[in-house]
Amino acid sequence: MERPRHQGMAKNTYMRWRLPLTCLLWEVAMIVLFGVFVRFGPEADAHWEEEKREMNLTSDIENDFYFRYPSFQDVHVMIFVGFGFLMTFLKRYGFGAVGFNFLLAAFGIQWALLMQGWFHSFKGGKILIGVENLINADFCVGSVCIAFGAILGKTSPIQLLILTLFQVTLFAVNEYILLNLLHVKDAGGSMTIHTFGAYFGLTVTRILYRPNLEQSKDKQGSVYHSDLFAMIGTLYLWMYWPSFNSAISEHGDAQHRAAINTYCSLAACVLTTVAFSSMLQKKGKLDMVHIQNATLAGGVAVGTSAEMMLTPYGSLIVGFICGIVSTVGYVYLTPFLESRLHIQDTCGIHNLHAMPGLIGGIVGAITAAAATEDVYGKEGFIKAFDFTGTYQTRTPSVQGGFQAAGIVVSLLMAFAGGAVVGAILKLPIWGDAAAENCFEDDIYWEV
Amino acid sequence: MERPRHQGMAKNTYMRWRLPLTCLLWEVAMIVLFGVFVRFGPEADAHWEEEKREMNLTSDIENDFYFRYPSFQDVHVMIFVGFGFLMTFLKRYGFGAVGFNFLLAAFGIQWALLMQGWFHSFKGGKILIGVENLINADFCVGSVCIAFGAILGKTSPIQLLILTLFQVTLFAVNEYILLNLLHVKDAGGSMTIHTFGAYFGLTVTRILYRPNLEQSKDKQGSVYHSDLFAMIGTLYLWMYWPSFNSAISEHGDAQHRAAINTYCSLAACVLTTVAFSSMLQKKGKLDMVHIQNATLAGGVAVGTSAEMMLTPYGSLIVGFICGIVSTVGYVYLTPFLESRLHIQDTCGIHNLHAMPGLIGGIVGAITAAAATEDVYGKEGFIKAFDFTGTYQTRTPSVQGGFQAAGIVVSLLMAFAGGAVVGAILKLPIWGDAAAENCFEDDIYWEV
Amino acid sequence: MERPRHQGMAKNTYMRWRLPLTCLLWEVAMIVLFGVFVRFGPEADAHWEEEKREMNLTSDIENDFYFRYPSFQDVHVMIFVGFGFLMTFLKRYGFGAVGFNFLLAAFGIQWALLMQGWFHSFKGGKILIGVENLINADFCVGSVCIAFGAILGKTSPIQLLILTLFQVTLFAVNEYILLNLLHVKDAGGSMTIHTFGAYFGLTVTRILYRPNLEQSKDKQGSVYHSDLFAMIGTLYLWMYWPSFNSAISEHGDAQHRAAINTYCSLAACVLTTVAFSSMLQKKGKLDMVHIQNATLAGGVAVGTSAEMMLTPYGSLIVGFICGIVSTVGYVYLTPFLESRLHIQDTCGIHNLHAMPGLIGGIVGAITAAAATEDVYGKEGFIKAFDFTGTYQTRTPSVQGGFQAAGIVVSLLMAFAGGAVVGAILKLPIWGDAAAENCFEDDIYWEV
Repeated sequence: MERPRHQGMAKNTYMRWRLPLTCLLWEVAMIVLFGVFVRFGPEADAHWEEEKREMNLTSDIENDFYFRYPSFQDVHVMIFVGFGFLMTFLKRYGFGAVGFNFLLAAFGIQWALLMQGWFHSFKGGKILIGVENLINADFCVGSVCIAFGAILGKTSPIQLLILTLFQVTLFAVNEYILLNLLHVKDAGGSMTIHTFGAYFGLTVTRILYRPNLEQSKDKQGSVYHSDLFAMIGTLYLWMYWPSFNSAISEHGDAQHRAAINTYCSLAACVLTTVAFSSMLQKKGKLDMVHIQNATLAGGVAVGTSAEMMLTPYGSLIVGFICGIVSTVGYVYLTPFLESRLHIQDTCGIHNLHAMPGLIGGIVGAITAAAATEDVYGKEGFIKAFDFTGTYQTRTPSVQGGFQAAGIVVSLLMAFAGGAVVGAILKLPIWGDAAAENCFEDDIYWEV
Repeated sequence: MERPRHQGMAKNTYMRWRLPLTCLLWEVAMIVLFGVFVRFGPEADAHWEEEKREMNLTSDIENDFYFRYPSFQDVHVMIFVGFGFLMTFLKRYGFGAVGFNFLLAAFGIQWALLMQGWFHSFKGGKILIGVENLINADFCVGSVCIAFGAILGKTSPIQLLILTLFQVTLFAVNEYILLNLLHVKDAGGSMTIHTFGAYFGLTVTRILYRPNLEQSKDKQGSVYHSDLFAMIGTLYLWMYWPSFNSAISEHGDAQHRAAINTYCSLAACVLTTVAFSSMLQKKGKLDMVHIQNATLAGGVAVGTSAEMMLTPYGSLIVGFICGIVSTVGYVYLTPFLESRLHIQDTCGIHNLHAMPGLIGGIVGAITAAAATEDVYGKEGFIKAFDFTGTYQTRTPSVQGGFQAAGIVVSLLMAFAGGAVVGAILKLPIWGDAAAENCFEDDIYWEV
Repeated sequence: MERPRHQGMAKNTYMRWRLPLTCLLWEVAMIVLFGVFVRFGPEADAHWEEEKREMNLTSDIENDFYFRYPSFQDVHVMIFVGFGFLMTFLKRYGFGAVGFNFLLAAFGIQWALLMQGWFHSFKGGKILIGVENLINADFCVGSVCIAFGAILGKTSPIQLLILTLFQVTLFAVNEYILLNLLHVKDAGGSMTIHTFGAYFGLTVTRILYRPNLEQSKDKQGSVYHSDLFAMIGTLYLWMYWPSFNSAISEHGDAQHRAAINTYCSLAACVLTTVAFSSMLQKKGKLDMVHIQNATLAGGVAVGTSAEMMLTPYGSLIVGFICGIVSTVGYVYLTPFLESRLHIQDTCGIHNLHAMPGLIGGIVGAITAAAATEDVYGKEGFIKAFDFTGTYQTRTPSVQGGFQAAGIVVSLLMAFAGGAVVGAILKLPIWGDAAAENCFEDDIYWEV
């Protein structure tokens, strides 16, 4: 049993020096590190003209800005407007939702460019960046936005920055293990983004358990217009999810597939969400919490397999199941996790990201294990799973095994990392609010 | 005269079993039908690598994901955020506006992929889908969103799903008649989407006439913030309409033309809307209803002709006229339709879609009939109207006649279809609310 | 000293004939001018098929709609949703913010197509337009939206239309001087859009000084939900700013660079804004005004240099500084400007556009002056600054000098133009509201 912390004690939430110093010092650190390490990649460097001549290229089509850039912008909208507004459903925490999400994401993308750069784009002592790095940085920060959902309303901005620093670091390590060491496919990040991000956040919120949180129960709900603001977030996430899952897929057939599969899964997910939202409520009325969140589970759950030959009906089945799992989770599991396991999950990320993320990892493993040259074609098969070089002898079933291993690694990283970071965030020096002041913008914002 | 229905009678709006069963059974049907019929098109299939080799292609530029995909995303935003938020202007029906639009569109796009697929993408017993199918499915659902505008606040979610099922079916038939049998051009769907969708919805709402609707008059207005939410919808529709009208035009000059013409028409439309909104009000003040809706009429009215050589000033003229027609419609016609013809049109789709849609069809017919080789160039002329094969001897004036026939067919389909579907929706088993409970989220949502 | 105007006098804000006549006559003028001058450019004209044959092109890749069109749409969203919603922060002026921005931008883009067309796309007596013209028209109107921010809530829609007419004209002249006569680079418009637009608006608001504006002080603040609406504007501006600064850059490396530099600058800017917002407030709380505005200063300040080899860390430094300058401006400078210089700047455009715009011009001049063949490569150097033809002997330091001259010219145009336009707007015939009725939608809108 945890013992009550800080009960009735006014906590020091004064940010005046702590927050500015953190922001300024960290940004200076970014500038120094960028100065030492980050340079333009060849497609963005003015020397491109020379490369073009040397490569005998006559047009800039080989260096097309509009290859991937529209995907980048869609993903960018998901991170800042999608996640930001999705969390504005709380009646008195709209500023914190949108504003802190903005802050942590703006810091996170810089740190992610470095961390992911060292692992993946490091050449001759420099990190060479291009549009694809910007997409990957947004992806990485997406996992932090997910974790933020679990602790929404209960942490100070400094805690969020610390969370971001550590989580981005661990994300990059986990991603490197999965993509480079295990040679796992995870285009839309069911494992690297959702499973890792969600279980990381859930572990952190477990460590930060607040026994007296019912003191701010009245503020943990929504009002009419805050629910409409949240729907802006929901719809942008839902609409652009096909862009998310296809953003870094191979040019050509894989990108088309990733978008179509995701589109199908999301469409099916809406119908089962509505069905179960109505069914699980005595009066048969729909619950905005479900519509705002569970409708998105279908996008999470095809994050690994979207670029594979999951097929449209396979995607519908995945979406069908995830709408149900996620809605049932909101009705039965969230209260259980809070009362029994002391996991206080403000946005219900367990239902939207954790379970669908796991399902996504499993669907990906199965789809990979079931791949045949018949379905993919000989070349398509090799290209889809990148069975070249060291991996040219890997079989689908072995790939399926490695995919499964990717899930386990992501979970272990999330639990271990979350426990450490949770412990750090529990130190009584970061200015988080007392239980009765949670979910209240007034603490950190001029209202 | 209609006699009052259900007056003072509490109606059974209990959704608990009816709505879940409808959603689940229909989604299962989708899965079965997708399983039997739907497969990836060649550009999304992993066999693309083999095709590429056989076709001697060295790059994936011939299979570029970013050809049409950005258009798809813009259209997608229009359907879900555009139409969804446009209808949030009602003070107590924001959840229903955004939420039911979400539900019906998510179901509709699946059914549209099948219906349109059977007509247009059916090869060897399979429907082969790609990004263009996704756009067309969104287009089809757009016509349902339009019809939804007429009955907004007065129907149950089950009725909306039934409406969607039938309207998508009829849309696909009508579209097939126009595009394939009459060989009519309708890039932005003035006829297939707007004229058909609007008159279909108006017929349905006529059949569902509620004599006692004044009982919920107080809820049929807006409040300050609901009008701002609606402006989100308006602006996204307005901004992305050039993408809508150009989304499925031929690559090259036609797409450019469609976007530029639409842009011009919309710009002019804003000014005449403002002019007449102020002029028709005694105190000269602007009415948000007009700004939210009539500003969009210019996009509707170039839906057929946008990809033709309408020219920028021609587009300005169309937009100029439609802003006036639409605003005048809101002020004088909507009250008349309600009091005399018993057409209760919640969002005024008659002004935004029906009349501008008709104008769009007529402008398209005239522009086609007036086409000359001089204006289009010899090859451009053939390409613009696809005067090849069976149609190589068709003249502009004949094409104009067929375009006009397309308007008539769309109207007949709308009236006939709307009457049948209205009669079905009138059955007292679908759980619609009593007149005094219309325009109230509380009936179907946990508030 | 100014003497109080209209104190206690009910002003005539009746718009019924003045506004409609202005809108209708001006739109008719647009139609006539478009009819005389505007035609489709070659990529949008149906004769393209012939050109293609003559140029021996086999595909439409050379006439790709998706080259620049996604950039256009992002910029379009910034102008209409970005600026429109950013200004909805006022508690009772949301309709005016979004609605008047919509009106002036819809008129402005038409007039800008003409004005910019005469200067830049005039061939054989016709203005030939394409997607790039649409982007440039949006850019031009962006400078009007900026100026609108200074006078928000204090002017009638007629005054805004007059402002737009003149400012677009002057913008086109200034742009011509800078880009064509001085041969200055200004991809994202630090000088042409921001410096010019902001100082123009500030001059206008200075001329229109209202000594009794404190009478409407209570309405000049925000409420909780109006601040959330404003955050929609902020985030869309922030997210799409990389598209803005890269929209008309050369295809290839320059576009990549412009997007990456802007992304970096904006990210850094968020952290220093948060830092100083907290630091400059006694209780250390964050101020929504700063988060909504100062976070964007980083985008403004790389508007000239984004397509140059500013490098990612250079961009971070610029963003770092501008977040500070802008936030400090909101806290100290805005009150000073109002009380001492009688510049009443509703949205604080001096902090968001004027100072960062100047910084952007200076950074651009320095970056240009510091350019070397080593950093750019021989060909890249020539291409980046277009040192061809008449300019092939221009050196970086000379270019830096011309860049600096561009700042001065923009400032002079802004001050002189703003003074004249301000004087015109001061005529007591345009229907602006009395001081006690400012910042109140009720004057011009049915509420």
